[in-house]
Amino acid sequence: MNDSRFHTLGELAELVDGLVVGDPSVRITGLNGFEFAGSDEITFLLDRRQLPTLAACPAAACIVARGTGPQPIPTIECPDPAVAAARIHSHLLARPFQARGVHPTAVIGDGCRIPLQVSVGPLVCLGDGVVLGERVTIHPGVVVGDGVLIGDDTIIHANATIAEGCAIGRRVIIHHGAVIGSDGFGFATDRQGRHFKRPQVGTVRIDDEVEIGANACVDRANFGTTWIRSGVRIDNLVQVAHNVVIGENSVLVAQVGIAGSTTLGRSVVLGGMTGVAGHLHLEDQVMAAAMSGIHSDQPKGARIGGIPAKEAKHWMRCNAAYHHLPDMARELRRLRKEVDRLGNQLNAQQHTASEEE
Amino acid sequence: MNDSRFHTLGELAELVDGLVVGDPSVRITGLNGFEFAGSDEITFLLDRRQLPTLAACPAAACIVARGTGPQPIPTIECPDPAVAAARIHSHLLARPFQARGVHPTAVIGDGCRIPLQVSVGPLVCLGDGVVLGERVTIHPGVVVGDGVLIGDDTIIHANATIAEGCAIGRRVIIHHGAVIGSDGFGFATDRQGRHFKRPQVGTVRIDDEVEIGANACVDRANFGTTWIRSGVRIDNLVQVAHNVVIGENSVLVAQVGIAGSTTLGRSVVLGGMTGVAGHLHLEDQVMAAAMSGIHSDQPKGARIGGIPAKEAKHWMRCNAAYHHLPDMARELRRLRKEVDRLGNQLNAQQHTASEEE
Amino acid sequence: MNDSRFHTLGELAELVDGLVVGDPSVRITGLNGFEFAGSDEITFLLDRRQLPTLAACPAAACIVARGTGPQPIPTIECPDPAVAAARIHSHLLARPFQARGVHPTAVIGDGCRIPLQVSVGPLVCLGDGVVLGERVTIHPGVVVGDGVLIGDDTIIHANATIAEGCAIGRRVIIHHGAVIGSDGFGFATDRQGRHFKRPQVGTVRIDDEVEIGANACVDRANFGTTWIRSGVRIDNLVQVAHNVVIGENSVLVAQVGIAGSTTLGRSVVLGGMTGVAGHLHLEDQVMAAAMSGIHSDQPKGARIGGIPAKEAKHWMRCNAAYHHLPDMARELRRLRKEVDRLGNQLNAQQHTASEEE
Repeated sequence: MNDSRFHTLGELAELVDGLVVGDPSVRITGLNGFEFAGSDEITFLLDRRQLPTLAACPAAACIVARGTGPQPIPTIECPDPAVAAARIHSHLLARPFQARGVHPTAVIGDGCRIPLQVSVGPLVCLGDGVVLGERVTIHPGVVVGDGVLIGDDTIIHANATIAEGCAIGRRVIIHHGAVIGSDGFGFATDRQGRHFKRPQVGTVRIDDEVEIGANACVDRANFGTTWIRSGVRIDNLVQVAHNVVIGENSVLVAQVGIAGSTTLGRSVVLGGMTGVAGHLHLEDQVMAAAMSGIHSDQPKGARIGGIPAKEAKHWMRCNAAYHHLPDMARELRRLRKEVDRLGNQLNAQQHTASEEE
Repeated sequence: MNDSRFHTLGELAELVDGLVVGDPSVRITGLNGFEFAGSDEITFLLDRRQLPTLAACPAAACIVARGTGPQPIPTIECPDPAVAAARIHSHLLARPFQARGVHPTAVIGDGCRIPLQVSVGPLVCLGDGVVLGERVTIHPGVVVGDGVLIGDDTIIHANATIAEGCAIGRRVIIHHGAVIGSDGFGFATDRQGRHFKRPQVGTVRIDDEVEIGANACVDRANFGTTWIRSGVRIDNLVQVAHNVVIGENSVLVAQVGIAGSTTLGRSVVLGGMTGVAGHLHLEDQVMAAAMSGIHSDQPKGARIGGIPAKEAKHWMRCNAAYHHLPDMARELRRLRKEVDRLGNQLNAQQHTASEEE
Repeated sequence: MNDSRFHTLGELAELVDGLVVGDPSVRITGLNGFEFAGSDEITFLLDRRQLPTLAACPAAACIVARGTGPQPIPTIECPDPAVAAARIHSHLLARPFQARGVHPTAVIGDGCRIPLQVSVGPLVCLGDGVVLGERVTIHPGVVVGDGVLIGDDTIIHANATIAEGCAIGRRVIIHHGAVIGSDGFGFATDRQGRHFKRPQVGTVRIDDEVEIGANACVDRANFGTTWIRSGVRIDNLVQVAHNVVIGENSVLVAQVGIAGSTTLGRSVVLGGMTGVAGHLHLEDQVMAAAMSGIHSDQPKGARIGGIPAKEAKHWMRCNAAYHHLPDMARELRRLRKEVDRLGNQLNAQQHTASEEE
């Protein structure tokens, strides 16, 4: 514990517009999960039902929901404890940028613009004309192609690749092994089945505060730009094809795949392994369950699921019925027999009746 | 615009057996998408309905379908405008190979055969006994294992890996981060549940004019060869397991996975995220919809979809019915009630009748 | 063939508690697949029906099931020929570790502990304080973060990344391009839709004898540890999210994805492309078919399939019924008509009857 790095509970509360319940002068050196927190750390509770466990928690303080009231340890009450915990944790971990400069084993192309305040790690390769912003960190093994622009405070993790001509915004995090700017999957096929590559001459533009997961792929456009707008969160092993546009703050969970030229509005959330066909538009705030297969445009705020994806409640009803299909089939066979018997019975009756007449 | 690089419309038409309608001496310096094309560029239209928009297009010329007839700007009429555009675009972008030699930071093993006309980039590692063809380009960060053969004019993009003993053909493109020749997923499990690795001593053979997407994986064979035949197109994040054979000109869209020992015929097309079980055979020209799950052999030309995959039209009918399942369940319950009531009614009638007798 | 490296059939039989049927002094230099085996190699047969083909097989010997009896070539009879073949093959390929030391182009951080008996390849980057065990092999292009521990006899393949603070056990194999220790996908979202990163301060622990496939990703924990227990087999392109625990000897086939905080028991087997939602528990020996979507806890030994996953036999019955859905819908419409007609007929009869009365 480094005394020069502690914060008081009062300072942290101010950061998140929170209310201290208890002693605001308590010193906090870090944030930790509920089961891990030590006596100089703050923790957080997202579920009110866990409040009774606070008495046994050695933490110095806890972030809780507004209106929780006095607890065995001091608290910060906030409208959104999850957001407050994320912000306080980042604040507690924040350190002044330590520029390590350019490692002697890094290979730097001609005409690059590299500020003094950067860290370019060992065995990095920057192509010609690369422009780095202030406080950029490029980890070992990263390859950056010719003419790439990388904005202030962006971090590129080990063994990622940013291909030529792509533009990366500020405060972006590209995780390990991700590939930005590989060729789109474009070709034309003749009658003999031979494929002719359609040159992919566009680029990728990634706006500010985007995060791209490990081993994810974002293809360059055929013409124009594949565009990841600000605040987007892309998880590991996601595939974003050429000419796709992902709207602000959208979230693509692991192993999602989006086919060419599809556009997503703002705050769209696609569950893991969801696939989206090409040339579609999903409007703002569409939410798709994991493993959805989306084959049609979706209106604003649609909640969908299934393959092909349908309105979520309908999909769940269909799913429920699906699991009664063997019963339904049996019932259908029974009904068929009974209806046939009834028909025969009725015919026999009428026959008898007509004979009687 | 570099005058020494222009082509006349007539020259380009000849390249694709097209017919110039208009002035064949028009000078073309590049090809661009319809919405991007400038006054010295040729563009293309694949959809006849867009022809009226040609009047407002600043492009110097347009590639169109045969029989389109005179337009506001000169055209090349071709049987297949998509193929013609791909070929003309590639032709316009073609530049003589510029050999950059072997970068001083590249590490070259013993006994490699490297022609003068190659570009081996910074921080590349070639193992022992690697043989490169003429005009091979190996981008930064690539690792090539011992004894790998790479054919003429092949391009290996940054941070890809070609493991020992694999053979790559001519005019192949391996995209960033792809892994060729990782171990197949093979082990034997004893009764205690312990797994014993089955050594994967085979290799991977990739024939001419294949393209392998970013972060895709092609495993080496257990024994023998995993074989990607000529003209195959593999998209990003695809998994090809050990001992798989992919027939000529087949297409695997992003995130497809093919399990061990399965073989595909020629011109098979698997939509994105499709999974194929092991030890199957898909004959020539099978086409599977995105997100299919293929668990059985497929005959030539089969069109399939769904999990497990079935004939496509049948699958679509099943899908359509699926979305009426809640209605069907309700109708079934109604029928049950009515049939029971009819039965009772009829029995009552018969009872009355027999009493009357 | 190197005489100093041959083994007698008797020696190999002893290794796997097998019984030699035939001459135990036969010399074996290698193991090969049935269709590849030469006259100095041993092969194996897993399927009794193939025994008649042994007469034409040039192999020196064959591994077969217990009780097979005399064959045209000498055999080793074992309770589990697949396990025996894997063990004998590994034994025949085993070579004493050849330490190549640390390649001069590798970049080694401060305070690393590196035994003499290691091979650290070209263009590898080890961070500060990395500790390597005996006989560790690190292939070219690998990046190892600060403070990583790597156990004895572990192999890290080319271009893989092990991020800071992770601990890798003994006899582990990490394949090419895999990423261990990337950030978990964690953030909190405020009412305006802005995402705040939750710092991922945990690590990854990988126990002994684990294998991780090419381009697979294992995220570090938010707090605490993402834990891959001993003997686990993870195939290519698999995603393991933060705080997941994978029990001993479990098997994740290619492109599986497991969401955050889910735990798996021992010997769980997930078929390719299966997705598991977060915060679930799958007990020991759960087996899921390929492309399952698991949304609920699973009891010990459950056999499941489908999206959402259900008990396997039930799921197969539902699937079978699903493919009769169009027939069921038609039958339902027919029944509706017949029931309506019967109803009318019966009403008409009663009407007549009542008129007659």
